Amino acid sequence: MEAEIITVGTEIILGSIINTNAVYLSKKLMGMGIETHYHTSVDDDYKRLESAIKIALDRSDIIILTGGLGPTDDDLTKEAVANVINKPLVSDIDMQKYLKNYFACSNRKMTKNNLKQAMKPSESEFIPNPRGTAPGVFVEYEGKKIILMPGPPHELEPMFDEYVCNLIKDDFNIVVKSIKVSGIGESSLETDLKSLDIYMPKFTITTYASTGYIEIKIIGRGLDIDELNKTSNLIVERIKSKIGDYIFGYDNKSLEETLLNSLKLKSLKLAVCESCTGGSISKRLTSIEGASEVFDRGIVTYSNNSKIDELNVDPFLIEKYGVVSQEVAYAMTKGLLEKSGVDLVISTTGYASPVEESKNTGLVYICVMDKKNHKVYKMNFLGDRKAVVERATNFALIESLRFTNKHYN
Amino acid sequence: MEAEIITVGTEIILGSIINTNAVYLSKKLMGMGIETHYHTSVDDDYKRLESAIKIALDRSDIIILTGGLGPTDDDLTKEAVANVINKPLVSDIDMQKYLKNYFACSNRKMTKNNLKQAMKPSESEFIPNPRGTAPGVFVEYEGKKIILMPGPPHELEPMFDEYVCNLIKDDFNIVVKSIKVSGIGESSLETDLKSLDIYMPKFTITTYASTGYIEIKIIGRGLDIDELNKTSNLIVERIKSKIGDYIFGYDNKSLEETLLNSLKLKSLKLAVCESCTGGSISKRLTSIEGASEVFDRGIVTYSNNSKIDELNVDPFLIEKYGVVSQEVAYAMTKGLLEKSGVDLVISTTGYASPVEESKNTGLVYICVMDKKNHKVYKMNFLGDRKAVVERATNFALIESLRFTNKHYN
Repeated sequence: MEAEIITVGTEIILGSIINTNAVYLSKKLMGMGIETHYHTSVDDDYKRLESAIKIALDRSDIIILTGGLGPTDDDLTKEAVANVINKPLVSDIDMQKYLKNYFACSNRKMTKNNLKQAMKPSESEFIPNPRGTAPGVFVEYEGKKIILMPGPPHELEPMFDEYVCNLIKDDFNIVVKSIKVSGIGESSLETDLKSLDIYMPKFTITTYASTGYIEIKIIGRGLDIDELNKTSNLIVERIKSKIGDYIFGYDNKSLEETLLNSLKLKSLKLAVCESCTGGSISKRLTSIEGASEVFDRGIVTYSNNSKIDELNVDPFLIEKYGVVSQEVAYAMTKGLLEKSGVDLVISTTGYASPVEESKNTGLVYICVMDKKNHKVYKMNFLGDRKAVVERATNFALIESLRFTNKHYN
Repeated sequence: MEAEIITVGTEIILGSIINTNAVYLSKKLMGMGIETHYHTSVDDDYKRLESAIKIALDRSDIIILTGGLGPTDDDLTKEAVANVINKPLVSDIDMQKYLKNYFACSNRKMTKNNLKQAMKPSESEFIPNPRGTAPGVFVEYEGKKIILMPGPPHELEPMFDEYVCNLIKDDFNIVVKSIKVSGIGESSLETDLKSLDIYMPKFTITTYASTGYIEIKIIGRGLDIDELNKTSNLIVERIKSKIGDYIFGYDNKSLEETLLNSLKLKSLKLAVCESCTGGSISKRLTSIEGASEVFDRGIVTYSNNSKIDELNVDPFLIEKYGVVSQEVAYAMTKGLLEKSGVDLVISTTGYASPVEESKNTGLVYICVMDKKNHKVYKMNFLGDRKAVVERATNFALIESLRFTNKHYN
């Protein structure tokens, strides 16, 4: 079965919000063995929305539409779907009651246009929305499944997990393995991979260049889960034997989750001090549930004074070597290690944006330190402010993982 | 002119990366008065890519394709475009030389497949890529403009700004005004807006619910820039007179940029201490160029000890009232205000995830304090970990803005 995701909303088309729903749904669909081939986004325009639905019905088996189920006049998804599949929109008495009750219980004023949310195409089913007032809709049409879901991620995500996944699942299994490498270019990596006997039926192997690392994804799809697992393990072993030195991780998880899991296993506590990355490392780490078991504290020392106050950096070092220097990176890290009593400290100091009288934009020192060892990296990252911060953050996470893998085996 | 953005890459379709290119390009196009109506994403499959290009040529005037220009075998964008417009791919001698030179200068090994990047459809032009090896391509075909750009944002963004914008600009002007409100629901807001005489020719007025606030966007498009400005100001004034109490910002900028600009104007220095938001506020603020003029430091106190060490919170308060309490929020804020010497401190303490023996997931205390005034907010945010952090972060930024607007007029 081939899926297509249509995200509806002018705010997506204008770039006002990022289309995270397509990301969430694609990942979930892949995990269920359903391939997604197209994402379409369209603004809140009835004609264009209708046309996008027609194109999707022509090429995909499962069509998930998100957004445009709200109470306002520019919410048109149900209207467009009903028209394309030639079913009238009808108001559902039970849903009317539910909505009236919902507003009464949550002490909110119900306006007349909220009743729009009790409408659905005839012969379709509502999908419950425990987190909001816009229910989802499920329609089968000419052997295709059409799912309408609300746009807000905190409503869409549980609705998918609790209801929609059961409406669309099939018998296929999917196995996904991931190998993360850094220190090798994408074309060299591809040349290396091509020299190996790893291209098997039912499997696709692709490389994705992320910021500062490359992910090799091995995806198998078939009915026999044991066979898929066996073959995928074989592929991973062959790749490992060829390019093992560049590999820093094997899971499908984010860098921050991989690092936290690794530190947790080793019972290590972590603290972070950031200058140029401005809280990005702390934010990435604390985005993971259970981070508090490993992550003790983060200090964003943006001013020179804060480096002196918070991390006991000697002002003389800043004056002599400059705030972006190996010496200051070392002193920041040591200061926090001593003060916090944790096992491992990561620090960054650098220039994320062009600085007056300096040509060193992108110069970042990253230090990783425990009570016995430390390493300071001097890097020149390319790109604008955002790119430098992202590259430095990823580099710090990757090298902390390598550091702890080396010293705590 | 109507634009369509086609992002090519299995990594987008699988949800491995977020489609930030579509966001960047849509914003830029809107700023140039060019309306985008569709975003399409398609995986690295030749047939599907071809079909997406045909559909786009049928409905849009400007088609921007991103991704699939790399050296590997699954980079197929040039091939697909060349085939759809029926032009052969030819290798460009100058580009071959440029690439050989580029690799020689940057001390990187050039593999045979890198030469793929010297190919372009006949009668097309290369677009320079100063940040990478994949040049862009510009083709005109049956009155339509087709632009091919590399996928990595740090290559795409400068290429758009320096070259592509000149290839596609027209004579229309666009004026965008933004009004940000919080404390009012979307349907009540729409009812209020509908009661006003603000719906004018050449203008569209839409509301977008973001996390914790709603943005009203007033977009005018036409030839006469003065008329557009005059009308848009009139619309803003009428909205202001009706719902002024809910408004906290008027610019098209992000919350963090609005707050930093406001503090800079008032010559106020800011520090942040975060527990449950885990560095999210610091990261958002430091993502803005020039943040260091306002933002002094951020402390992420994830453990109880770090709150005691870093912010001089009395352990007795934590024991008596719990770490998520009005008293601890106040003490954290006061501790940092006294220690750092800044003018304004924002703090957060709360439960972002379900906690043992606690039903209070989403309970967050936010405190804003200067040397004379303070305010502690007790909030119950809905949603998962990510949603709670985002809501708390936005709430903190919005209320800091209201706080400083009130006390520093």
